[in-house]
Amino acid sequence: NVTGDRLWDSLMEMAKIGGTEKGGCCRLALTDLDRQGRDLFVKWCEQAGCTIKVDKMGNIFARRAGEDDSLPPVMMGSHLDTQPTGGKYDGVFGVLAGLEVVRTLNDYGVRTRHPVEVAVWTNEEGSRFAPAMVASGVFAGVFDLDYGLSRADLDGKTMGEELARIGYAGEEEVGGREIKAFFEAHIEQGPILEHEEKTIGVVKGAQGQRWYEITVTGQEAHAGPTPMARRKDALVAASKIVTEVNRIGLDNQPYACATVGLLNCSPNSRNTIPGEVFFTVDFRHPDDAILSRMDQELRAYANKIAEEGGFDMAFEQIWYSPPVEFDADCVNAVRTGADIAGYAHMDIISGAGHDACYINRVAPTGMIFVPCENGISHNEEEEATPEDLAAGCNVLLHAVVERATV
Amino acid sequence: NVTGDRLWDSLMEMAKIGGTEKGGCCRLALTDLDRQGRDLFVKWCEQAGCTIKVDKMGNIFARRAGEDDSLPPVMMGSHLDTQPTGGKYDGVFGVLAGLEVVRTLNDYGVRTRHPVEVAVWTNEEGSRFAPAMVASGVFAGVFDLDYGLSRADLDGKTMGEELARIGYAGEEEVGGREIKAFFEAHIEQGPILEHEEKTIGVVKGAQGQRWYEITVTGQEAHAGPTPMARRKDALVAASKIVTEVNRIGLDNQPYACATVGLLNCSPNSRNTIPGEVFFTVDFRHPDDAILSRMDQELRAYANKIAEEGGFDMAFEQIWYSPPVEFDADCVNAVRTGADIAGYAHMDIISGAGHDACYINRVAPTGMIFVPCENGISHNEEEEATPEDLAAGCNVLLHAVVERATV
Ligand SMILES: NC(=O)NCCC(=O)O
Ligand SMILES: NC(=O)NCCC(=O)O
Repeated sequence: NVTGDRLWDSLMEMAKIGGTEKGGCCRLALTDLDRQGRDLFVKWCEQAGCTIKVDKMGNIFARRAGEDDSLPPVMMGSHLDTQPTGGKYDGVFGVLAGLEVVRTLNDYGVRTRHPVEVAVWTNEEGSRFAPAMVASGVFAGVFDLDYGLSRADLDGKTMGEELARIGYAGEEEVGGREIKAFFEAHIEQGPILEHEEKTIGVVKGAQGQRWYEITVTGQEAHAGPTPMARRKDALVAASKIVTEVNRIGLDNQPYACATVGLLNCSPNSRNTIPGEVFFTVDFRHPDDAILSRMDQELRAYANKIAEEGGFDMAFEQIWYSPPVEFDADCVNAVRTGADIAGYAHMDIISGAGHDACYINRVAPTGMIFVPCENGISHNEEEEATPEDLAAGCNVLLHAVVERATV
Repeated sequence: NVTGDRLWDSLMEMAKIGGTEKGGCCRLALTDLDRQGRDLFVKWCEQAGCTIKVDKMGNIFARRAGEDDSLPPVMMGSHLDTQPTGGKYDGVFGVLAGLEVVRTLNDYGVRTRHPVEVAVWTNEEGSRFAPAMVASGVFAGVFDLDYGLSRADLDGKTMGEELARIGYAGEEEVGGREIKAFFEAHIEQGPILEHEEKTIGVVKGAQGQRWYEITVTGQEAHAGPTPMARRKDALVAASKIVTEVNRIGLDNQPYACATVGLLNCSPNSRNTIPGEVFFTVDFRHPDDAILSRMDQELRAYANKIAEEGGFDMAFEQIWYSPPVEFDADCVNAVRTGADIAGYAHMDIISGAGHDACYINRVAPTGMIFVPCENGISHNEEEEATPEDLAAGCNVLLHAVVERATV
């Protein structure tokens, strides 16, 4: 079994880097804080006897040699970047659970047949640089390298520039090598396991996602002497679309999620009618056909608002990630691990995207969920118990050892 | 008559300070650019033989002595600060028209019985520091000095600190002295004069205003695994209120104006449900009773949204400026000036607030409007013709000379 305290201590140590007053974590991708988090991870892995490689997307691979080191590795991992108001577990748990598995193998002096690697994927959150999971996406051949390196934040800084700046623009080619299996442990980020009183979620797949960027352009004018009838108020138009996004989510229950997370109003002055509003839309559904229908409803409504109000509307779907079904052998390895360890478990579909969703395209993949308090994530109050985290890590150990032996 | 070219050249010279690519002007109150604008104005006034005084709110008074310099002055003026996407005329015209009147009196060697002053009022726009017209408000005793100096921008910098920083925290007490009459020339900032083909608007008064700040607090959570039914999405709530503000404006026609000009969403991340949204509301109506009704409708709706959705809602009316009626003698002086000069004119109610609205409480006050292209203001494309501006300045000259003589 893994050492739960050591896992917990590592999580708390990592959480200090970017730790917030409210007990959360703000460690945005490719910032100086992200570099510090990466450096700490690399130090720990070297202390555990691993060799480190970094690829051109800044993905880090810490490798523990196998009996036959020419065999493809069994890989674990997740991400170290967080949301602006992120928690201490999202992503970090999957990375440090991987490290804890390596440390446990060391403790027991176990040498697996296949080598074992712990991966840190760059910019999973998609918050500083959109879309999410971009570097695991390049690894999986979903995006090409140029696309990945040219993703820019809202200040125009690209991932390529920022990787070079923090010293994590590595030499390795991205992807293109065989992987025996990939496992990602993660907090559920939703309320289901807690509600069903299960310790382990055996993740069978993930819902599909479509992300959009919309810019509505109206006309700036004075809020006082400009009659209502002559206005082109871009914020009124955007607000109607925000409400419609919510309506589309509500009307496609169960399962649909629909969110406007980011909205910037310009010139953002109290007594000037807004001339331009930029905002994003995040649509999700496990059924691709319903996700398409949501897409059509949004497009139709946005067109209607633009035409009726005489607005310019720049409407772009910037990301589409279809629903994912994980590998049967890997899912079984997770379920068997939970059974052997005696944890209450259930099958579950992931509401969030994860690096595992892309790695699944180039390697047999599975995921392990543990509960988080009130199902709350992407929030500084995100919480999980040391017991549940240790349980998830034990299941990861079982699944990895099983796949690294056959 | 005034020299239109000289007025125009001064306007264009001033517009370079903070000039934008799109031909507008961004010279926010108490920034380094505002200091440069003030310095230029002071230099020009000194060259025109005026003495300069600055009060504790940073209001500047350039004085041309009268025959009997112990008599109360006739004052002209407006403001030099602009909106973030402002134009070249809003405010600046009233200040430089005052300067042009002084220069014209010099040209003709006319000495008026009363002294004549040109005033620059600090932070009229209310964009960097809310509310609008705050320094003329302190002058008029509507706000006390501490209130004025403690107004803070969204970064927390106060007007007092920023006045000291740019060297315009003057020695003079604010207000408390007799003024014979005050005249403010201004572009209309609305479409009426242009539509009616009039050169001069004889401003009889201004509509009432109520400004609000609203903060909706919900709960941040992950946009993927958080079911719609469990969400407290602060942006959805705010968007409904934005739409309702617009509805209230439309349903109180004619005259009502209703605007949300500023909205900040937090944490503003694509895949996080917004936990907090801060926004402002600007309500206007010439009839105080209808303005009150709009206020009640907004409060009722905001309460409903808060209760239904379980949101915390901080709702504050931060400013109330009742409808204004200008002084009959001053209004007549403007109308007579337009008649004598032979300009097509009409009576009009101001849609915008102006420093004149506050000065009206402590001195007989009038305003002169000239058309602006398409009625567009608070926009970098704000335009007015040299001819109309010269006409407005001529009417100002007539009115001032008339009042400075009796
Ligand atoms: N797990 C996670 O927070 N992923 C970010 C991508 C997404 O929004 O699903
Ligand atoms: N004239 C002008 O733009 N004033 C600003 C105050 C207002 O919003 O009415």
